[in-house]
Amino acid sequence: MRIAVVAPSCPLKREAAEAVQAIVAARGDCELVIHPQCFLSDGHFAGPDEARLAALREVMADGSIDAVWFARGGYGSNRIAEAAIADLSDAARGKLYMGYSDAGFLLAGFHKAGLDVAWGPMPQDALRGGHGLGNGTAAIHRALDWLVRRDPATLEPALEQRAMAFNLTVLSNLLGTPLEPDFSGVDLLIEEVSEHLYAIDRSMFHLTSSPAIRRVARLRLGRVGDVLPNDVEFGTDETAIVADWCARSGIAFGGRADIGHDAQNRVVPFGPSKS
Amino acid sequence: MRIAVVAPSCPLKREAAEAVQAIVAARGDCELVIHPQCFLSDGHFAGPDEARLAALREVMADGSIDAVWFARGGYGSNRIAEAAIADLSDAARGKLYMGYSDAGFLLAGFHKAGLDVAWGPMPQDALRGGHGLGNGTAAIHRALDWLVRRDPATLEPALEQRAMAFNLTVLSNLLGTPLEPDFSGVDLLIEEVSEHLYAIDRSMFHLTSSPAIRRVARLRLGRVGDVLPNDVEFGTDETAIVADWCARSGIAFGGRADIGHDAQNRVVPFGPSKS
Repeated sequence: MRIAVVAPSCPLKREAAEAVQAIVAARGDCELVIHPQCFLSDGHFAGPDEARLAALREVMADGSIDAVWFARGGYGSNRIAEAAIADLSDAARGKLYMGYSDAGFLLAGFHKAGLDVAWGPMPQDALRGGHGLGNGTAAIHRALDWLVRRDPATLEPALEQRAMAFNLTVLSNLLGTPLEPDFSGVDLLIEEVSEHLYAIDRSMFHLTSSPAIRRVARLRLGRVGDVLPNDVEFGTDETAIVADWCARSGIAFGGRADIGHDAQNRVVPFGPSKS
Repeated sequence: MRIAVVAPSCPLKREAAEAVQAIVAARGDCELVIHPQCFLSDGHFAGPDEARLAALREVMADGSIDAVWFARGGYGSNRIAEAAIADLSDAARGKLYMGYSDAGFLLAGFHKAGLDVAWGPMPQDALRGGHGLGNGTAAIHRALDWLVRRDPATLEPALEQRAMAFNLTVLSNLLGTPLEPDFSGVDLLIEEVSEHLYAIDRSMFHLTSSPAIRRVARLRLGRVGDVLPNDVEFGTDETAIVADWCARSGIAFGGRADIGHDAQNRVVPFGPSKS
């Protein structure tokens, strides 16, 4: 099992790369190929669009690579997602792709293109936790347990039928774009981090007003971390916000989900694409 | 000329209301009816949805009111916009509606419903400027000069054909919803405030990926105020971001526009609706 790591958004920290390689060496069940592009820096991004796209397409087309693991989120994968799935090779179709947060743009577009994708922890998560490698180590093992041996213990525990998971803001920003997948009958999990409650309410308006989203089987809310303070108390909380917009739009609210921008984040395989 | 003020989003500050009434008294060319709902408070909002909607529908249906002026932005008008335009009365059709920022949800939906709307300063803007009433007074006069006598000196100076103006985040969040108007052939002006450059780039991806937005005649960028700091320098600026996404999407970029979240904000009438 050879796993390639590329960074379609922001640069991977060196200490995260080293921590993950140490975990991989201790496990002995896979080989991790961290592409040098992961450490490029160009303003906000892990290198210019061209370099991030070239590295991604290189590992996608490499028949010796079994899985592509997105290094981290941040922002920027949307800038190269459409180009990444143009003229897909057979080698690209034979792999699993995993990540979350900003990588949701890729999960959406890749799934729509018929590739095998999963929401799950990323290499940069090695640095989560109180002392750098505390909880982060468990997140890395969870991701590798799915990548290497599809261990069902890594999965979000209440998944039904086809499922998808997205950061709410990322999902809101891919609606109506060429990356938008078919949500029909999907168990849709969302989570959020570092946003104001009013912005979450606004994103939920946008999301639940979409006819495409109204075709989900149900919507579930993962963790909402590091909520930014409102000038005045917003007046309600994230669960009430999501339940309210589901009720207004006729979407079944399925309660809370075990995903989030944290070391406890679980794996959500998107399953086969309908397209 | 009787102008009603209601607050579909957040509460109006008392000192802003007093300042605007003083300006109106000095002008002597109109009467300002500030609805008591403007001062309600319910968490983030100027009263619960029901109260904000009732006040808005009350002034819309009042034949003695010539114009409805939205008190301020913030967040929340999207929660009542669709209900506000249900079963429109003739009285509602005979008025002008003005505001900006979060009120863009109303401008979009009302324009789509065939009502006469304009982007322009709001009563809360009386408090802008160094000493509370400095530049804000000019903004209030500008708004009233349009509301009372359609003074062309108040207009954004380079408007062509049909025009629309929106806060970028508000516009992004109304795409694909029932509030989305017809953008065909429109001179589309956007502005932003208090966002990170990466979030502006992400919103521009969302915006310019929309087939509906690609039908505009051109896109122009107003002021982008109070940009939030990035962890690292983003690497480019707001003009380059917007020009880049226009180039990628085949939208004509028309340069900068004279609107923004500030006391210099100009008036942009949306003109007749195509629907």
